[in-house]
Amino acid sequence: MPLVQTRRLTRQISIGNVKIGSKAPISVQSMTNTKTQDVDGTVCQILALEKAGCEIIRVAVPDIQAAQAIEKIKPQIKIPIIADIHFDYRLALASAKAGADALRINPGNIGDPEKIKAVVDCAKDHKIPIRIGVNAGSLEKQIEQRLGTTAEGMVESALRNIRILEDLNFQDIKVSLKASDVSRTVKAYRLLSSKTNVPFHVGVTEAGGLFAGITKSAIGIGMLLAEGLGDTIRVSLTRDPVEEIRTGFEILRALGIRSRGPELISCPTCGRCNIDLFKIAGQVEKALLERSSKIKVAIMGCVVNGPGEAKEADIGIAGGDGKGILFKKGKVIRKIDQDQLVDQLLSEIDNMTKKSEELNGQKE
Amino acid sequence: MPLVQTRRLTRQISIGNVKIGSKAPISVQSMTNTKTQDVDGTVCQILALEKAGCEIIRVAVPDIQAAQAIEKIKPQIKIPIIADIHFDYRLALASAKAGADALRINPGNIGDPEKIKAVVDCAKDHKIPIRIGVNAGSLEKQIEQRLGTTAEGMVESALRNIRILEDLNFQDIKVSLKASDVSRTVKAYRLLSSKTNVPFHVGVTEAGGLFAGITKSAIGIGMLLAEGLGDTIRVSLTRDPVEEIRTGFEILRALGIRSRGPELISCPTCGRCNIDLFKIAGQVEKALLERSSKIKVAIMGCVVNGPGEAKEADIGIAGGDGKGILFKKGKVIRKIDQDQLVDQLLSEIDNMTKKSEELNGQKE
Repeated sequence: MPLVQTRRLTRQISIGNVKIGSKAPISVQSMTNTKTQDVDGTVCQILALEKAGCEIIRVAVPDIQAAQAIEKIKPQIKIPIIADIHFDYRLALASAKAGADALRINPGNIGDPEKIKAVVDCAKDHKIPIRIGVNAGSLEKQIEQRLGTTAEGMVESALRNIRILEDLNFQDIKVSLKASDVSRTVKAYRLLSSKTNVPFHVGVTEAGGLFAGITKSAIGIGMLLAEGLGDTIRVSLTRDPVEEIRTGFEILRALGIRSRGPELISCPTCGRCNIDLFKIAGQVEKALLERSSKIKVAIMGCVVNGPGEAKEADIGIAGGDGKGILFKKGKVIRKIDQDQLVDQLLSEIDNMTKKSEELNGQKE
Repeated sequence: MPLVQTRRLTRQISIGNVKIGSKAPISVQSMTNTKTQDVDGTVCQILALEKAGCEIIRVAVPDIQAAQAIEKIKPQIKIPIIADIHFDYRLALASAKAGADALRINPGNIGDPEKIKAVVDCAKDHKIPIRIGVNAGSLEKQIEQRLGTTAEGMVESALRNIRILEDLNFQDIKVSLKASDVSRTVKAYRLLSSKTNVPFHVGVTEAGGLFAGITKSAIGIGMLLAEGLGDTIRVSLTRDPVEEIRTGFEILRALGIRSRGPELISCPTCGRCNIDLFKIAGQVEKALLERSSKIKVAIMGCVVNGPGEAKEADIGIAGGDGKGILFKKGKVIRKIDQDQLVDQLLSEIDNMTKKSEELNGQKE
C-alpha cells in the first residue's frame, strides 16, 4: 500500500490564477488576523505570508469597510484573496465588486432565496467561486436538532448548501467540513467524498496552540491527504499565520506530496552529544527558511553515528569535542572549529545550490 | 471505518512496572540528552519529564561511567529506565547490573556469539527486556548492500535481530524501525506487523525542529497508531525532551486513544477579533499544563461566533470590545473585564474540577 493513495477525482475551480481540484497541486492557504479595513497592516501580513509560500489568502469581511478594503489590498499583493462572509449577502456583493477572487459564504445561511440568487448571479458575473464552509459548531438549527454536531450533520449541511448553488446552475464550488477534533473532521470528509465531486478545502478548526494545533492539523489533514482527499489545505493555529503556512508545507513534505525549500533533519541529541545542538539547529533552521533550493541538510549530535545515520542527506554537520565535521552523503569532507560550523555549512549549501543551478541552466 | 483500527495483537512485555503490548495503554517515552554520568543533571531532567507525563526514560550509555550512573539515578526517579547501548556488550552487562529496567541493543551488532549469549543470559537473570532498535541509517552492511536503506532492509534487519534473540530462547523483546522520513517508517512497520508479534516502539527518527519534527512525528506515528500499530511511542525533536512528551500525548489525544490533562481549543483569530487572543491562549495553555482534570476549554476570538462554535467545550471565554464573556457548553454565563478573563477562567476551571472530584468522591 503506498503512503498516499490515488487522489480523489474532483471538478476543478480557479481562485484567481490558482487552480484547485483535479490534478492541480494541493495549495496551501491561510487567513489574515488583522482588521481587514487596516489596509497597511493587512497587506503587510499578506506579504509576509507570500514570502512563506502562502498561495491563497482569506480575509474576514464582517462589515462594509472590510469589503471595500479589498479593492485597496488587491493591487499590493500577488496571491488571490478570498472574502470570508457570514450571513450578510450585501457583504458578498460588495466584496465581489471590490475584486475578491472568491467568496466564502454558506448560501443556506443567507436567508431569502432572492438574496441567495443575487449572490450567485454576482459570483457568475465576476466568474469567482464560492467556498461552502461547514463548521460543526455552527450547523443549521434543524440539522443540528436531527443529527447533532456530528460528521453526518456536517455532511448533510454541505450537501444542502451544494444543492442550493447547483439548483441555481452554479458549479464553481469548493467545500470544507471542519470540526475542532480529528475524528469528526476525517469522518465527515470521508463520508462526503463519495457524494460529490466538489474539491475539498481541508483543515481542522480551532486546532489550538503550537503543540496541539500542529499535531491535530498534521494528523487530520495528513490522514485525509494520505487517503487522496484534499485539494487545498489550511492549518489553523492560534499563532502567527506564517506558522500555519510552514506547518502546511511540512505536512505536504512529510507525505512526499510537495516540497518547498531545504529539508532539515536533526537528531534529538543524547548523552553522546558534546555540542549545543539545539542552538545550532535553530540557527540553521532559521537560515534555511530564506533559501529555496530543495537540498536535504542534516544536523547531528555526534561524529560517531551522525554522518552514517544521515548519509541520505546531501550535506550535514556533526558535533564533536571542540571540533565538528562537515559531511556530504555520509562522507566526511573536513573538520571545522565548532564556532564556524553554521557559517561554513550555509556557505557550502549556497555553493552547492549555485552549482546545481548552473548545471540546470536556470535559477529557481 | 473508525478513525483508529483494532490494535494489532502482540505479546506483552514489562519495562519495570510499565506493560507494553497487547492491551496495555500505549505508553509515551523519551530520552535524556544530558551526560548520563552527570547524575544530578540527568535526574533533574527525568523529574521534569515525569511531571510532563513521561512513562519510560532512556539514557545514553556510551561508556562504563554512564552505565554505573544508572545505579545512582534509579533511586531518585519513579519511572523505569532503559540503557541505550551501541555495540559494546560490556556496557549492557554493566547497565543491567546497575539496575536498568531494559536494554536497547541490537544483538546483531555485538559480534562474537559468546558475547551475544552473555547479554541475553544477563537480561534473563535480571528479567529485563531488550529493545531491538533498527535505524535506516545504520543497517548491517550486508543488508544495506543487498536491499539499500529501504523499509525492506529495515524489516530484514529487525527479523535477523529477533531471530538471534529467539534462537537463544529469549522472547522478552520490543522492536523499533526508524527512518528520518514518514514514508519508509510507516512502510517498515506495516511490513513487519504481519511477520512477528513483538510489540512495537514507534517513532520517526531525526524528525527535526519544532514544525518539521512535530509534523513528521504526528503524521508518521499518527498513521501507524490509526492502523492499530504501535505499543509505545517516542517523539523525536531537536528540542527539550519535555516537548517530546507533550507532543506524544497530543498525538494520542488527537486520535482519541488516551488523554492527559485539559484539552484546549482556540480559534486562529481573524479580522473579527478585538482582543490579544494569542497572548491569552498562551497564558491559559501554560496554566493548564499544570492541571490534570480532563476538562475541555475554549479560547475564542469573538463574542458573536465564539460561544456557539465552541459549544462542545465545558467552559470557554470569548473576547469582545473591552469586555469578554465566560461561557459554559455554549451558554453565556457572564461578562468579564478583559484583564480579568484569564484569572476568572482558571478559577472557574478549578471550581469545576473540585466539584467534579467531590461528586466522584475521589481526587485525581
